[in-house]
Amino acid sequence: MTDIAMIEAARVRLDGHARRTPLLSSPFLDEIAGRRIFVKPECLQHTGSFKFRGAWSAISALAPEVRAKGVIAFSSGNHAQGVALAAKLHGIPSVIIMPSDAPRIKIENTRAYGAEVVLYDRANEDRDEIGARLSKERGLTLVKPFDEPLVIAGQGTTGLEIAEQAREEGIEKADVIVPTGGGGFISGVALALAAKAPGFVVHPAEPEGFDDTARSLASGKIERNATQSGSLCDAIITPQPGNITFPIVSRLCGPGLVVTEDEALHAVALAFNRLKIVVEPGGAVALAAAIFHGESLGGTVIAVCSGGNIDAEVFRLALDKFPA
Amino acid sequence: MTDIAMIEAARVRLDGHARRTPLLSSPFLDEIAGRRIFVKPECLQHTGSFKFRGAWSAISALAPEVRAKGVIAFSSGNHAQGVALAAKLHGIPSVIIMPSDAPRIKIENTRAYGAEVVLYDRANEDRDEIGARLSKERGLTLVKPFDEPLVIAGQGTTGLEIAEQAREEGIEKADVIVPTGGGGFISGVALALAAKAPGFVVHPAEPEGFDDTARSLASGKIERNATQSGSLCDAIITPQPGNITFPIVSRLCGPGLVVTEDEALHAVALAFNRLKIVVEPGGAVALAAAIFHGESLGGTVIAVCSGGNIDAEVFRLALDKFPA
Repeated sequence: MTDIAMIEAARVRLDGHARRTPLLSSPFLDEIAGRRIFVKPECLQHTGSFKFRGAWSAISALAPEVRAKGVIAFSSGNHAQGVALAAKLHGIPSVIIMPSDAPRIKIENTRAYGAEVVLYDRANEDRDEIGARLSKERGLTLVKPFDEPLVIAGQGTTGLEIAEQAREEGIEKADVIVPTGGGGFISGVALALAAKAPGFVVHPAEPEGFDDTARSLASGKIERNATQSGSLCDAIITPQPGNITFPIVSRLCGPGLVVTEDEALHAVALAFNRLKIVVEPGGAVALAAAIFHGESLGGTVIAVCSGGNIDAEVFRLALDKFPA
Repeated sequence: MTDIAMIEAARVRLDGHARRTPLLSSPFLDEIAGRRIFVKPECLQHTGSFKFRGAWSAISALAPEVRAKGVIAFSSGNHAQGVALAAKLHGIPSVIIMPSDAPRIKIENTRAYGAEVVLYDRANEDRDEIGARLSKERGLTLVKPFDEPLVIAGQGTTGLEIAEQAREEGIEKADVIVPTGGGGFISGVALALAAKAPGFVVHPAEPEGFDDTARSLASGKIERNATQSGSLCDAIITPQPGNITFPIVSRLCGPGLVVTEDEALHAVALAFNRLKIVVEPGGAVALAAAIFHGESLGGTVIAVCSGGNIDAEVFRLALDKFPA
């Protein structure tokens, strides 16, 4: 079970390897939102998302003889890249199992970060069977994307940084909004802030139609999404909250915030114009919530931008729809 | 005359006001360039460029009773925004004199940062006369864009950060490339690094056709550009190196690097894809030089990205021309 000691231990392991991303702000965003908004841009993290933190945390905690055999992960996105680079920097092999219809650029990036990519046919092959066979044959350790205490601890290091950076800015009370898929990121951040900045309230942000965490928080039990595809916010689309993460989120977090896809794209355009950062739609839902759905929040908001792995085509769409 | 003590004093004044921008990198850029490249993204600084540092340095050093009367600057771009915000945060008035044909967005931004914008007609009015009259009437202090020791000291704080961050990365020798217009930024960075990282060689980067500093370094005397407009790299187009800055650059810097406009746009696209930052063409010339003109350099390169105030239209052009 992840606790603040595990997060602090993860931070020691990440020191000198993960980036300490800055805390950004813009008077223009404050004016639009009618409140102070700070942004924690994890799109500037290695591999373009916070996932590198959790991957590094899990891999660096393995016993050396176990680690040396390598790691395996299932992912078509940001977790794949985080695990691939963290493994490469540890000098160990990684196998990433990806659907054969994943975007070519994501497959190429994952390979370029040093992973062996094993493609499977979603229709006719069982990825878990392939993963289990490879793990057994080669002695690979599975790095889960969110329902894993060491991964949660790694993501939580972002929360430690937020607590320190907020203190430097003189922020004593704030709503902290985190883009949420399976809940690993928000769980880690909420655990860190509960210990280090107890005046802060953490909220998940999700896109409309994929608001499983908001609904689960409202009903008090794990709810599923009706569909699992068809959103530009692909980075945070998961079937339901995790079995390990949901109890943490349920215990520590305030109500979920839900934004439209257009609001997420608008936040992508505003982040371009006003913060000079590249954010993917799924990574921009917390900023969108801070700007367009602040009515339920107290005063100052800290919005986490979780990733920046966006295709030029989608970025162009955001700039076209929402010119400065 | 700016020296390391003045830069360190500026840093104390900037502490808690300017952002400490991170040092970024990407294995993809290293692979393209065939060398390690680090990027100092001053596009993430307040107002989207390093200019905020120099403006804050100059304004914060004024005697309180002088400062209270306000400041004045001539600029249609990044210096305007830096001065406007630094003045606003000091609670003092600022007047920015801009040509009436400056892009509307820049005029609006400068106003939104709290400045009184005075427009003049380039063809029929003398901006220096207007500035002198307003300064006299209101007791405003002129903040020059580069040929001013306190401004150079403020820009030099970037160099102090580079020296520390490079040490954390274990970099002992490097070429540091800085986008160069009038030379205030590179002068400050070179002075800081001469004191704090003497193994580093600083080079200016400029666009083709506006390589006054490279030619001045080659000839040993101040050379002018033939034209003063017509470049997408508008942020760093000045007629010639400054009278205060050029002797510093000449004493401390290595040869200048010159890139094409297309190389600058390519660097803008690579910074989008690989670093998740928004850089304007003029701010990307150092990164372009590091990637495409590294043959004359030693090993590791630190490229400064000086600003990110780019129109969506030009950004789209970069992404269209140079897809991932």
